[in-house]
Amino acid sequence: MEKLPYLVESQQLSQELIFELFKRADTLRKTPSRTLYGKVLATLFYEPSTRTRLSFETAMLRLGGQVVSTENAKEFSSAVKGESIEDTARIVGAYADCIVMRHYEDGAAKRAIAVSKKPVINAGDGRGQHPTQALLDLYTIYREIGRVENITVAMVGDLANGRTIRSLSYLLGKFKGIKIIFVCPQNLCVGNDIKEYLTRHNVKYSEETDLAKVLPTADIIYMTRIQKERMSEEDYKKSKGKYTLNMESLKLVKPNSRILHPLPHVEEIDFTIEAEENDKRIAYFRQAENGLYIRMAILEHLLG
Amino acid sequence: MEKLPYLVESQQLSQELIFELFKRADTLRKTPSRTLYGKVLATLFYEPSTRTRLSFETAMLRLGGQVVSTENAKEFSSAVKGESIEDTARIVGAYADCIVMRHYEDGAAKRAIAVSKKPVINAGDGRGQHPTQALLDLYTIYREIGRVENITVAMVGDLANGRTIRSLSYLLGKFKGIKIIFVCPQNLCVGNDIKEYLTRHNVKYSEETDLAKVLPTADIIYMTRIQKERMSEEDYKKSKGKYTLNMESLKLVKPNSRILHPLPHVEEIDFTIEAEENDKRIAYFRQAENGLYIRMAILEHLLG
Amino acid sequence: MEKLPYLVESQQLSQELIFELFKRADTLRKTPSRTLYGKVLATLFYEPSTRTRLSFETAMLRLGGQVVSTENAKEFSSAVKGESIEDTARIVGAYADCIVMRHYEDGAAKRAIAVSKKPVINAGDGRGQHPTQALLDLYTIYREIGRVENITVAMVGDLANGRTIRSLSYLLGKFKGIKIIFVCPQNLCVGNDIKEYLTRHNVKYSEETDLAKVLPTADIIYMTRIQKERMSEEDYKKSKGKYTLNMESLKLVKPNSRILHPLPHVEEIDFTIEAEENDKRIAYFRQAENGLYIRMAILEHLLG
Repeated sequence: MEKLPYLVESQQLSQELIFELFKRADTLRKTPSRTLYGKVLATLFYEPSTRTRLSFETAMLRLGGQVVSTENAKEFSSAVKGESIEDTARIVGAYADCIVMRHYEDGAAKRAIAVSKKPVINAGDGRGQHPTQALLDLYTIYREIGRVENITVAMVGDLANGRTIRSLSYLLGKFKGIKIIFVCPQNLCVGNDIKEYLTRHNVKYSEETDLAKVLPTADIIYMTRIQKERMSEEDYKKSKGKYTLNMESLKLVKPNSRILHPLPHVEEIDFTIEAEENDKRIAYFRQAENGLYIRMAILEHLLG
Repeated sequence: MEKLPYLVESQQLSQELIFELFKRADTLRKTPSRTLYGKVLATLFYEPSTRTRLSFETAMLRLGGQVVSTENAKEFSSAVKGESIEDTARIVGAYADCIVMRHYEDGAAKRAIAVSKKPVINAGDGRGQHPTQALLDLYTIYREIGRVENITVAMVGDLANGRTIRSLSYLLGKFKGIKIIFVCPQNLCVGNDIKEYLTRHNVKYSEETDLAKVLPTADIIYMTRIQKERMSEEDYKKSKGKYTLNMESLKLVKPNSRILHPLPHVEEIDFTIEAEENDKRIAYFRQAENGLYIRMAILEHLLG
Repeated sequence: MEKLPYLVESQQLSQELIFELFKRADTLRKTPSRTLYGKVLATLFYEPSTRTRLSFETAMLRLGGQVVSTENAKEFSSAVKGESIEDTARIVGAYADCIVMRHYEDGAAKRAIAVSKKPVINAGDGRGQHPTQALLDLYTIYREIGRVENITVAMVGDLANGRTIRSLSYLLGKFKGIKIIFVCPQNLCVGNDIKEYLTRHNVKYSEETDLAKVLPTADIIYMTRIQKERMSEEDYKKSKGKYTLNMESLKLVKPNSRILHPLPHVEEIDFTIEAEENDKRIAYFRQAENGLYIRMAILEHLLG
């Protein structure tokens, strides 16, 4: 089977490899494996993302590997000590067997792989991509719906700034019968690069503004947070609270549909804890857990 | 024997369990044990407490387990990405086998256990509790004095803001013949909740303002730091330096008494390094070391 | 063979021990070793230095040991919770088997060893020393040039603030036939303490201002960064960019000479990526990697 040298964008993943990773994730969920014993992962986070970082680190440890880590990688490139991403990747790649990098600039991961002697995983770069998030999203669809073809996916919220949206759209573009409905405030619509990609890959998409109309038709409702930190105060005010799922709107969701969210969520999700624990349509906590197993599968693929 | 599902407050600990943990801590001190091999602990610190965090993490590693960690958990609940404690506990509890949480809000740990599928240990929540600190305090009394009954304990300093004081009082309330003397600036006296608890549990307590009078009578002198960060500037000025132990006042302490402190100390302790190393009455560094073994015993109890 | 109880300054290292460590580093590079299984290293960084920290931590993990860590040790000694270095060393030394400490104050490591029951490694203290950096520098000279005697070393850049310069000078002073040429802006010249040490140890040194004249004569060109964070704005402006190596000046460097740099570099190095990958005279990335193996050897020496 093909073997990736690194993972920086969703487009790298073939259908065959995707299913191979899903299968392996299913196995790792049930059977402990120490396949990465003796290996060391470095997690370099230039912006904090504790959830993603802990997910990768736990994945590495559960495979028998070890981790060195920084929540504070920005210091590498600070005004005071200025160092290029390339130099950092070279040096850390000399110590560790793999680098997981989260960066605030688009394209940072690509710059790192140009020089690193060890595999680099892009754990989010600016408005760029976040391929392991997309893969765990798709893995969740696969487990919850039972297929990744012939499904209608509603993507809701901040579609302009979400790298998750970009990475997942690219991944969905690899499968047949996908229909995407973008539901977003007018100032936060999905970019042309994604639309063109979808057109090229024969994925049908439409844009809607009324969430209530979309809810009864979607198999997957993929909610996202309005990313306050990536927009102007004015844009935030226009969009905040515009698309919200609550106990009332939940009634519009089909019995076999699923609600996903890359988390953290804020006001765009407003369910009771009881519903979150008992209503099987609410899938985002299982989705988060899936991230652990899919990241184990990816680390094993790159390092094994 | 009973098995706790989590540890958020001192009241949960029965006499029987306390002695069981002491016994196990004594054993772990002498005999290496890898009982938590393959397990992963997550330490989520919403406010920094490097000492407590390193103590828990070393405990986990010495039991053969692994650790993922953040000193920066506040980012989880930041204005920008706002996430509830409940969501965080659910997600991290999906990756890791146990969560150790330090939080700046009273009651944070209780909110976490309401939803977490994995054991949560409260490593301090606001002005609330810090049960493992209380347990290591009591363990130190047990080792140093040879008993945890029929002792007189002077608690000195900031008794209003110290969760350590609350947790230790609750724990002492479980034993016979305890007498507590509270010595504190007028603006930092112990709360009514603690007094009522002690009354209910037949613990004698009194309040004194003259430390010199108390020193010759106490078996345990439990010093605390004035917690500048939890009070107004004015309150701090009133209290700072009011109760201090130095080489002079040390003369008033009985030969078999012990001085404890949850550390870090500042000006309320002013001994020479020689005294700290050679005078057996000064017990706070042994107390800190005891924390390692008692936390190993607790982790093993919850996870083993 | 002699066994060090700690490592706080270069002067502690004898010629015999240095070669022993080089030999062991050579072996560890090729052969996995789990000699520190069951041991725990604590890395206490009072100022961030992710590169150095990750290097030590990876070294410990690759020897089978474990690590607890803080990037944020300054909190220990913050205004709020004020704790002395001595207390911190005592407490952390009670948990862990070894402490690696980076501190912003000269002499911090010496204060720690005065009380710590466990070995302390100085990973840089203010303008003081950084002995493992010096050792990895010398190890790089040994591997690249094939000897550590009879060589001419040009030290270039900020020689006033660089503890690396101090530690390496002290180390070179132990060998025969060393000639050092200091090349620095007038406001950033090497200190008298170093000059006196070199004179005492019969090391010839000279001071030059024209880098172009020095390049053709040196076996080792040891570049350093102008440490903006350790000087006034005015001093920085005077020195910035004054001594730079680029593709043009590289032509002046002898075919068997080597360019070293403790990294991170900023504008004082300006080579193409191709040159950095293919020109064997550019040795600083190999130098960084050498740090991993030399630190493994040191950890093993102190803890084994």
